[in-house]
Amino acid sequence: MLPTELRSMIRSGTHTTHTSGVCEDYVQTNLVILPKEYAFDFLLFTMRNQKSCPVIEVLEDGRFVSDYAKDSDIRTDLPLYHVYEHGRLVEKKQRVDDCWRDDFVSFLIGCSFTFESQLIKGGIPLRHIQENKNVAMYKTSIQTESAGVFKGETVVSMRPIPDSLVQQAADITSLFPEMHGSPLHIGDPAEIGIEDITRPDYGDFVGIKEGETPVFWACGVTPQAVALASKIPTMITHAPGHMFVTDWKNEEYLQK
Amino acid sequence: MLPTELRSMIRSGTHTTHTSGVCEDYVQTNLVILPKEYAFDFLLFTMRNQKSCPVIEVLEDGRFVSDYAKDSDIRTDLPLYHVYEHGRLVEKKQRVDDCWRDDFVSFLIGCSFTFESQLIKGGIPLRHIQENKNVAMYKTSIQTESAGVFKGETVVSMRPIPDSLVQQAADITSLFPEMHGSPLHIGDPAEIGIEDITRPDYGDFVGIKEGETPVFWACGVTPQAVALASKIPTMITHAPGHMFVTDWKNEEYLQK
Repeated sequence: MLPTELRSMIRSGTHTTHTSGVCEDYVQTNLVILPKEYAFDFLLFTMRNQKSCPVIEVLEDGRFVSDYAKDSDIRTDLPLYHVYEHGRLVEKKQRVDDCWRDDFVSFLIGCSFTFESQLIKGGIPLRHIQENKNVAMYKTSIQTESAGVFKGETVVSMRPIPDSLVQQAADITSLFPEMHGSPLHIGDPAEIGIEDITRPDYGDFVGIKEGETPVFWACGVTPQAVALASKIPTMITHAPGHMFVTDWKNEEYLQK
Repeated sequence: MLPTELRSMIRSGTHTTHTSGVCEDYVQTNLVILPKEYAFDFLLFTMRNQKSCPVIEVLEDGRFVSDYAKDSDIRTDLPLYHVYEHGRLVEKKQRVDDCWRDDFVSFLIGCSFTFESQLIKGGIPLRHIQENKNVAMYKTSIQTESAGVFKGETVVSMRPIPDSLVQQAADITSLFPEMHGSPLHIGDPAEIGIEDITRPDYGDFVGIKEGETPVFWACGVTPQAVALASKIPTMITHAPGHMFVTDWKNEEYLQK
């Protein structure tokens, strides 16, 4: 299926589930929508924390069509949206064109699906994918660099990697500085403030076997978590796993 | 002289002239100060036009000390400021702390001094430096990618380069994508909308001799020109050649 067909099905209500494993050669993105009043602080935050916030595109106020997705509409082309008010989830919706405001700014932020496709191609097994689960994510003690109202700790994703492949996994991901880049941490979770590795803050724990090392990367959930913590009056995001699918191939993005 | 000494002399009114050739191993920057209301559009503009707008640092509202300059004060540490209202130059001042506003955001943008030091080290002669003149700059027909209220044409700087060294000059500058990068254009000025190469829009024409080719790079004057054209109510910039001098060595910046 082509992304344009998928977006059309989502828009018409035919596709209503998550986008994991769908159109998998194409870049999928996280979405954060904020009133323009907060857009400068947020954009500056993403610039200062590029490892966790790889911005792919910004749609300024007045725009809802992505340059990377023909005939798209950011208000209707994701299967599920979360609407937050003052840091609290108040509604889950299949489209947000009915509550759209002229001052909304949309941020498309890189998603780990793109990142993981390169690890798999490099021969690194990823257990959460083999088991069809969500990657394990943790709040850490690693401070982000704050910008205006946005401040807080970095969220990381963790993947158990066979000891002999840890260096290779680090090498592969370091080639993509615009997509999370090299690991933030390798090994002991306690060093970055994770008390119980078996209980992630988001996603699923898939075990760490003998001969495996936990490897931690900056995670695209960070900007959402930080924006939530700042309790701004209105924020809309994608629902976890329900991404915006672009027409842009992973390989093209990573080689840009 | 160390940058911290220079900034101290500027602040006390002892150094009042331009900064060309002063502390020349250190990064000097252009300065654009805007009310926060326009800061998102401007930051997005710089992201979309990185070749002409290499942002080194953003000081959000409430800040006036640069991370790259110990004990600095962006309001007093440049020798001369230009104050614009609605696109018109209304005042030239030696300090702007008396008209500072809490909602001012400051953008430090890379300056060609850094860029040129690498060309000279690479054996490329630069005539305007040999003749102690300002580089020639031209408005072109090359559109910038607009962002909100900011739109317009790219301003380029032109340096006459001996034919046999053109490729080398292009190669050297391509190594610094975060500092203007490779040339935007090589050769015929008419192709980028420059009608009379002998009459630059800013700076000084130093001739193009037989056996030399005009080489054009994106220029840090672009964001200022575009911001001026948008006629926003208030903007403060450095006066041409009167830069902010950081504690950061050119080599460190270019290798980051």
